[in-house]
Order: sequence, then structure tokens, then C-alpha cells
Amino acid sequence: MSLTPEQAAEIAAQRDARAETRRAISPGLEARLYDVIPVLDHGFVRAIDYMGDDEAIVQAARVSYGRGTKAARNDEGLIRYLMRHWHSTPFEMCEIKLHVKLPIFIARQWIRHRTANVNEYSARYSILDKEYYIPAAEHLAAQSDTNRQGRGDVLTGDEAQHVLDLLRGDAERTYSHYEEMLSEDGKAGLSRELARMNLTLNTYTQWYWKTDLHNLFHFLRLRADAHAQYEIRVYADAICDLTKAWVPMAYGAFEDYRLGAVTLSGPALDAVRRMIAGEQVTQETSGLSAGEWREVMAQMAL
Amino acid sequence: MSLTPEQAAEIAAQRDARAETRRAISPGLEARLYDVIPVLDHGFVRAIDYMGDDEAIVQAARVSYGRGTKAARNDEGLIRYLMRHWHSTPFEMCEIKLHVKLPIFIARQWIRHRTANVNEYSARYSILDKEYYIPAAEHLAAQSDTNRQGRGDVLTGDEAQHVLDLLRGDAERTYSHYEEMLSEDGKAGLSRELARMNLTLNTYTQWYWKTDLHNLFHFLRLRADAHAQYEIRVYADAICDLTKAWVPMAYGAFEDYRLGAVTLSGPALDAVRRMIAGEQVTQETSGLSAGEWREVMAQMAL
Amino acid sequence: MSLTPEQAAEIAAQRDARAETRRAISPGLEARLYDVIPVLDHGFVRAIDYMGDDEAIVQAARVSYGRGTKAARNDEGLIRYLMRHWHSTPFEMCEIKLHVKLPIFIARQWIRHRTANVNEYSARYSILDKEYYIPAAEHLAAQSDTNRQGRGDVLTGDEAQHVLDLLRGDAERTYSHYEEMLSEDGKAGLSRELARMNLTLNTYTQWYWKTDLHNLFHFLRLRADAHAQYEIRVYADAICDLTKAWVPMAYGAFEDYRLGAVTLSGPALDAVRRMIAGEQVTQETSGLSAGEWREVMAQMAL
Amino acid sequence: MSLTPEQAAEIAAQRDARAETRRAISPGLEARLYDVIPVLDHGFVRAIDYMGDDEAIVQAARVSYGRGTKAARNDEGLIRYLMRHWHSTPFEMCEIKLHVKLPIFIARQWIRHRTANVNEYSARYSILDKEYYIPAAEHLAAQSDTNRQGRGDVLTGDEAQHVLDLLRGDAERTYSHYEEMLSEDGKAGLSRELARMNLTLNTYTQWYWKTDLHNLFHFLRLRADAHAQYEIRVYADAICDLTKAWVPMAYGAFEDYRLGAVTLSGPALDAVRRMIAGEQVTQETSGLSAGEWREVMAQMAL
Repeated sequence: MSLTPEQAAEIAAQRDARAETRRAISPGLEARLYDVIPVLDHGFVRAIDYMGDDEAIVQAARVSYGRGTKAARNDEGLIRYLMRHWHSTPFEMCEIKLHVKLPIFIARQWIRHRTANVNEYSARYSILDKEYYIPAAEHLAAQSDTNRQGRGDVLTGDEAQHVLDLLRGDAERTYSHYEEMLSEDGKAGLSRELARMNLTLNTYTQWYWKTDLHNLFHFLRLRADAHAQYEIRVYADAICDLTKAWVPMAYGAFEDYRLGAVTLSGPALDAVRRMIAGEQVTQETSGLSAGEWREVMAQMAL
Repeated sequence: MSLTPEQAAEIAAQRDARAETRRAISPGLEARLYDVIPVLDHGFVRAIDYMGDDEAIVQAARVSYGRGTKAARNDEGLIRYLMRHWHSTPFEMCEIKLHVKLPIFIARQWIRHRTANVNEYSARYSILDKEYYIPAAEHLAAQSDTNRQGRGDVLTGDEAQHVLDLLRGDAERTYSHYEEMLSEDGKAGLSRELARMNLTLNTYTQWYWKTDLHNLFHFLRLRADAHAQYEIRVYADAICDLTKAWVPMAYGAFEDYRLGAVTLSGPALDAVRRMIAGEQVTQETSGLSAGEWREVMAQMAL
Repeated sequence: MSLTPEQAAEIAAQRDARAETRRAISPGLEARLYDVIPVLDHGFVRAIDYMGDDEAIVQAARVSYGRGTKAARNDEGLIRYLMRHWHSTPFEMCEIKLHVKLPIFIARQWIRHRTANVNEYSARYSILDKEYYIPAAEHLAAQSDTNRQGRGDVLTGDEAQHVLDLLRGDAERTYSHYEEMLSEDGKAGLSRELARMNLTLNTYTQWYWKTDLHNLFHFLRLRADAHAQYEIRVYADAICDLTKAWVPMAYGAFEDYRLGAVTLSGPALDAVRRMIAGEQVTQETSGLSAGEWREVMAQMAL
Repeated sequence: MSLTPEQAAEIAAQRDARAETRRAISPGLEARLYDVIPVLDHGFVRAIDYMGDDEAIVQAARVSYGRGTKAARNDEGLIRYLMRHWHSTPFEMCEIKLHVKLPIFIARQWIRHRTANVNEYSARYSILDKEYYIPAAEHLAAQSDTNRQGRGDVLTGDEAQHVLDLLRGDAERTYSHYEEMLSEDGKAGLSRELARMNLTLNTYTQWYWKTDLHNLFHFLRLRADAHAQYEIRVYADAICDLTKAWVPMAYGAFEDYRLGAVTLSGPALDAVRRMIAGEQVTQETSGLSAGEWREVMAQMAL
């Protein structure tokens, strides 16, 4: 990830500027605002703005007139209760805005989360920079033998080198042809909205992405999960860090009741109950399909 | 609208507290944050929090690294261009959170705007206060003769007095029965989630309501319109004031391109073109239905 | 629930009409289309239209050219896999449209589910019928002692009778005053949009409500739950029946993986693992709060 | 656009199958159901399913308006009234499901319309076909001189040929490397979720896309517009045809009040009023910026 000196200066200027506000602030996120968190080889995540803090969740749940909450149940207890019982609307009262730079094939996964606001850099209007994603050696995974949408072992030796050569060579060539088609040196120059089609899917794009905390947690639950593609998981991990700094209580509840949680189907619950009662349950006697049995055993680490 | 001393103190405490932030601030809205703006006889609107300012719209449209934008086209010009061309996503990058107290029958209109986050005071969990809306004399309108969902002249004299007596008497009686049913003096007391059904639709409720600027403008265009019911229009008007203080450039563009704008259908446009060319066009020669002709003439003030 | 003869005739005519279609059909739901399913004392649910069937879920998941699916994993297995792994988009490819008549205080709970399309009967434009909800004796529940938003025992004897008298008396009186205010016998007559505010919250309204299967399941999971208010749960139960007739495979998966499922937090999962290993775990040794421990024990029926 | 014999047979089988239904049907769309409408060089649109017809709009609107359905104003008049007055919810009561094959860079524009359901062919799970978009000679447009996101003249001669050679050569090469990286002939084979990043943005993808009529009209207004990129406009045009066959009355209203309509800002309206009054208005005397003046003159064809 490399910034131009101008970009670095603009970011530094934003970080230096301070103003007084009457609004709720999150000291944890203030400290990290505008900072560039590198992700993958050229990508990043930056928190640009936020609304609300842990207390704002409590305030909304109570439809309060002020900040004070002298109720018996403390703020953290209430937040955990809300999370546990899927009372999602108080979490929607917090909002975050991120600036993200990411490869296009990852942007296509990300955008499937529809309850968010997005402004993407326009390749109809502007020319994309020459930046493309090449996996690090340790992430150059082979196709999984068992999971059609998963990864297996890491490629090595000549095969790895060959793959890297192909990826790099094609990205270089398609980008240089993109530039060539756009060029107007004595020619008309292809329109930007057409020329972009020659770029490969690992080309980086960037956007402003804004969402509320409830929908952010939903995104993180799916994308910070072990089954998510590595290249989106690293973004989710970086956002998990920011979210923990922003709303530590809500994030703690999210970790316990979502990230670290397991959902047992009715039939799986029966099997677990029998195990607790001391019975030796096998897939055959569980009534579960082989696939579900395997998943339940794995999730429960049994 | 009356606050308890505790509520007034909580609000004052919130207004007095200041903190330093790195975020974009809107001086206009900071000055009005948390303040109670009375609406109708017991309702109010208060701005609780916000994200972004006019510049944030420009930043998002440009997917900027920083704040500074010294481009040829200035910020206001760009904001007006975006509004005129229905580029709605940059406006979604600003967000506002309001605390609103309003009669239930108005809350039912309001909630039809789905792209918003809402936390309403729960009458399953808590007991509603004894506050209900009674129209002021000058708003006690008769049914319109010409518009099935509109208002005609204002009721006067005995009829007006009788209506006010009925509204007030019924609200008093149903509320006192609500209290009586809930009461546990030597009795079990009806559950809150059932007792509430005895209240009339002019009972006040309250909620936290949060939405982005694009959807707020959509709400305001429909609800600050002359055809909206008076009792929701006064809320929309109060929010228009807050919005103007918050994002003056965007609000100006909204006034010109939405609030004060007129949409001409293809056939209406033809008629207007003929008028500009000097032709004397009538409904009969316009090709428009009588209803649409009337609407176009009224909208264009011709 | 009572229909006018005209309404009954219109429904019968709709049920009798048949046409040929190339679309996917659900024989189970065809048999019940337009039928009035009574709910509460005057309410109902009717299925008005639908799109898709179980096979349509599979087709969308596979982005198929046709209907045939000769893959190893059969349709039901795939549907169950999709449900278990929260692949929600294929379920969004089915859609249902319902006509519902329901008390206003329940409509207010219902509308909080935002991802749906709604057309409600307008009391600005039309006059509401004189129909209001009065709980049956066995549902006249007292306030719960332990759960602030729950019900306790059923009221009995004089207290029950008194409550019923109050509810009925107030609904009768407020409705007759509503009629009186609207009346134009020698008077101007209050506008409809104002007069409606005098009605009590148990007055019936009605709407067309349309949603996709994924969001319908979300609604049903929350509203067919034992913690939902009885008066909305009966609607959810009726819709569960219709959904089972419509998409039996998807509904079966929903029963196993949502309705009958239990989510264990990370800490609760630890406790369960220790129980399976034969340890005697108590709340104190579990690390869970008293509240969460009670909930986990209840959910798992331990 | 080429189908495999299996795909063609599956489509034919679907078109041949008929069943009886009690639901509303649209004869116009039934006739075109499942049919492949070719778009661009390898893309297509197919209508897979629908819910509702023109009458369904009226039915939904009248739940909110009242009981009587033999009112003076006929169905078409009501539909036009609803469209003119932005009563959008009745149009949401119709739904359509399409199967679309389209280049990835167009899919990225399309997906920005968030109020829709989408199932896309997964390149994590499956291997994409070797199909990529190459513009026809008459659409090989140069960059516009005046509009940064527009097209100018068509490229010709050697420059055109060179661009086509580059586009075709790069797509061929990147696809063949994609295949090579996936291949397991004596090698591990790169995982699909990684290999796909080597493809160019003109590679075709496909999805099932489902939306309601209100949101479809919004999509069509923006994408069938003269300012939309040609490559998405041809899809919008094909869908316009299908929509006209499906709901002819609603589509007619959409043409008059949306597609063919012009929105005048407050200041532009003033200028038009002065023109109608016979005044000779110029940009300077209009009070409009040069840009807006040009747009207004163009829109009104003055």
C-alpha cells in the first residue's frame, strides 16, 4: 500500500484538525480516525466518520432524554441482553463510514451486503491507478479437494512461481493496453467507460462505505468467519479491530453471542441433550445427516 | 409540550457537555443539538446526533483521501449538480438522529418511510404518559368537498366546541380506564401489552429516528408538501429548519430542485412548448385529462 | 370475523376463476388461495398471490436455465444446506402477498419489519368500519410479575368482567363519537384525517402485505416465538400454516434450523462441552450470568 | 449469444409446460416467459416468473382507498393518478424475476440498485465460461470531449482495429491462463476463488434478479436514459419491452410521467413562466447557471 505524498499530507492534515462538539464521542475510535490500516498488498481500510458510542445504544433502547442511566441493570448488561435477544434496532443507532481500497473481485462480494451506503471511485469518469492484487506466497492456495468453494494446500515450487508469473504478467499487460487505448496521442482515445473492461478483476478500486452497527455486525459475522475467502476476511479482521475500539461493550457482546456462538438445529439439540445425559451418540443414532453431523461436531469441537 | 424538571436537567447537561473531535462538524447543527423544538400541543423534535456536513457529500462523491478540494467546480456547484442529476449516493453519506414525540396516528404515517432506523418507546414494557393531541381551533378542519383525503373550511361555533369536547372527553376517559385496568390495588392488573389497546390514536408516543440525508430529503419532499396532513407537515417543517442549519448547501439545492420543482409529463411538456411558441393552449387542445390539466396549471401557477 | 355478502361473493368469484400459466405453481397454496383464515375476533389472513415454489429456490441457487436438476445432492438436501449455512438469497426468490385484517396496536408491531411492501386501508380517505378487538376470556392476561413485557395469570371474576366492560364501552363510545364528528347532517363534519384520532388502538385496520420468503421466515421466527405477544402470534401461526402448504421443503428446514434451533454463546458452549464431558456444571461454575444461565437451561430444556 | 443444446432443451421444456392457476395472470408476459432475448454479443435477458398484473396495482391501492371498486375513475385512470402523484406502494405489489447474462463491468453498475434480490453464478464454486464482450464496430466510442463520463465519436480505421485486437487478445490470453492455473494435470491447481481474479472485466457472468415494479421503474428510468452507458441501456431497453407486455397500463403511465417527463427546478420554472408570458429569456437573464440553462434547453428541446 503506497500513498502519494499529497494523499499522506491530506490525511495528516485531517488527523491534526480538532474541533469542539456536543455529540457523543468514542475516544477509542477518535484515536484511529483517518488512519490508513494496510490490508493485502495495496489495499487499506480507514475510518472516516462515526455516529454514536456504546452509550448511544442504551439511550436509544431507552428512548432517553439525556445520557444519564441510573437503572439497576447497567449499560453493559443491557447491551448484552439486547444482543442475546436479537433486539437489533438499538444497534442500528450507531453508524460508521469507512474508506476502503480493495481488489474488484472482493468488492463484488462485499457489495452483496445491501443495507449500506456506497460511493465508489468511477472508472467511467476517471482513470484507475495501476495497482493490482498478487497473493503472497503463503496465500497461493490450491483448490480444496473436499469443498468446492474452499482452499486446499498452498502451491509451491514451480507451480507457485508459474501462477505468480501469469497473474503478474497479465495484470501488467492488460493495464498497459488500458493506458494505450485511452491515450490520445494523435488518436481519438477509447472512452473510459469502455477501456476499463480490459482490466483484470484483481485491479484495485476504492469506495466510501457507510453502514449501521447492526448491519456491520452482520457483515463481520459472515466475512470474519473461517469460511469466508481469505481476501475479504483480512478486511473484516481490520474492521473488527476498529469496531472494538469504537464500541467495546457492543463488540464484546458480539464476540460472545455471534462470532463465538453456535446454532444447534432442533435435531442437533436432541443429540446434545442425550450426550449430556451420558448417552454415547453417533451419527447413525443421532438422526442427523452425515454432513450436518460433521458440521455440528466441528462447531462444538467435540 | 412540557418536560419534567429531570428531563429539562438532563437535556441541559447534554447541551453543556463538550468534547474534542477529529470528525467533520456542522456549526449550525451543533448550536441546536439536543434542543427541544415544540411541535403541536405536546410534541417535539430534537436533533440527537449527526454525521457529516456539506463537505462530506463532496468528499464521498470524490472518494477523497482528505478534506481539501480545490477543483475548478466548487463544492456548492458540485452539490447542486449531484442533486439535479439524481446522484443520490453522496447524500446518503450524511446521517441524522432525531428524538421525536408525536401522536400515534401521525407515527403511523411516518413509519411508512422504511429506509430509517427506529426505536420507539415500548407500551408493552412501560406505561404511556397521559398526553394526547387536541387540535388548536384554527386547525379543526372540516372534510374537503372536493378532495376525499383533504381538508375544507375550519369548523366554528357550537360544532367546533362539540368536537373538541368529544375528543377531550374520550381521551380523558380512555386514559383513566387504561390506568384503572393497569392498577394492581388489590387486583391482578391487566398486562400492559393489552391495556394499551384502550388508548385513542391521538395519544403521544416517542421514538429515536435515524436516517441518511437522501432519505430525509425524500421524507421532507413528501411531508413538507402542501398536500401532506397538517399534523405531520409541522414536524417536517421543523426538520427542514434543522436540516438547513446542518447542511446549508445541500438544503439549498433541495429547495430548488425538489421542494420548489415541478415535474412535467411528456404530454404536459408538449403543451408548455406550444405555449412558449405563442400558441393559446386549452385543456381541450392540450391532450391532457381535465384532472392533469388542472394540476399542471396549478403547479406552474399559470 | 364477518364478511359482507358482497365480499364473500367477490372472494368466491376469485377462487372459482382459473387460468393457464407457464409459471411454477405450488399446488398446496393454490388450494388455499384467497381463502379467509379467521384470526382473533374479527381479523383474518388471506393469501392473495405468490411467486415460486421449493424448486424455484434450487433453481435460483443454481442460476439454472431450466427446471431439471440432476445433481447428486437432491433438492431437499440443498434447501436444508442453504438454510443451515445462512445462504439467504435463494429464499428471497420466492414471494408471497397477503391480505390481513388486524387491530391497529398489532399493525404497529408488524410494520416494524421493514423489508416488505404494504398498502394499508386509508382512514384519511375512507371511513373505518366499526370493528374492534376484545380479548377472549382466556387471553385476558394480567401483567407478569417477572417479565416487564410479559403476561402472567389470566384475570378472573369481577376484575375480568370489569376490564371487558371498560374495553367494550370505550370502543363503542369512541366509535360512535367518531361517526358523530364525521356526520354532515346539517353540519360541516370533521375531516376524516382528524376524526380517526378518536378511535382506540384495538380498532381493526387492514392491508396488503407482500414479502419474500427469507424475510417472511425472519418475521415468523420472531412472531411465532413463545415470547411474542399472543395477538400477533396467532397471525404468525396462521401464516406458518400457509407457508408450509406453499413451500413444504423450505418450511421443514425452517422448522429444524430456525424455529426449533437454539443459539449457544461462546461461554454457554463451553459449559455444554463440560457437561458432555461428564462435569457437573452449575451457574456459579459456568461463568454465565444468572439471567443467561436461566435462559440457556430453559432453551435446552435441561 | 449461444446456448448449449441442453440449455435450449431445458428452456423449451419449461415453455411447453402449462398448469392451472387461480392467480392473476398477464397474457402478454406469459407469451414471452423463459424466452431468451439476446443482448450484446453473448448476453441475454429472460423473464423467469412474475407476480401480479395491472389489476393487482388497482386492487392493492383500493385496500387503502376503500371498498368500492366500481368507481367512476377506471383502472387506467387510477394507475395514471398513482404514478403522477408518486404513490409508489401499489406498484410494489407486482414483482418480476429475470435471468440475465451480462459482462461483469455492467453487472457492477447494475448491482448498485440495492432494492432487489440477486443470485449470481459463483466463480468461487464453479468455473466461468469463456465468453467475453467485444463492442461492435459502431459502438467503439471515443472519450467525449465535453462530458468526462460520456462517449464521443466512434473510432475508425486502424485505431478501431487496434483496440479490438487488444481487447480480444487480452481476453483470450487471460482466459487461457485462467484455465491453465485451474488445471490439475499433474499439478495442484489454483483455487477457483483465486484464479478468477485473472479474468478481465468484460467476462460474462449471470444472475437471477428479482425486483418489484416500483423499483424496476426506478432502474429503467436511470438505465434506459440517454445518459446511461450503452452497454446497460440495451438491457434496460429489453426489459422495457418485457414490462410493456406484462403491465401495459402501468408501463404507459411510466412512459408519460417518468421516461418522457422533465423536472424543472424552481428557478427554471420561473424562466419558463416568463417565456410563456412572451418574454425573451436568455441564460443571463434567467438566473440559471450556464450548465443548468443548457440542460433545461436540451430537456425541453427549446
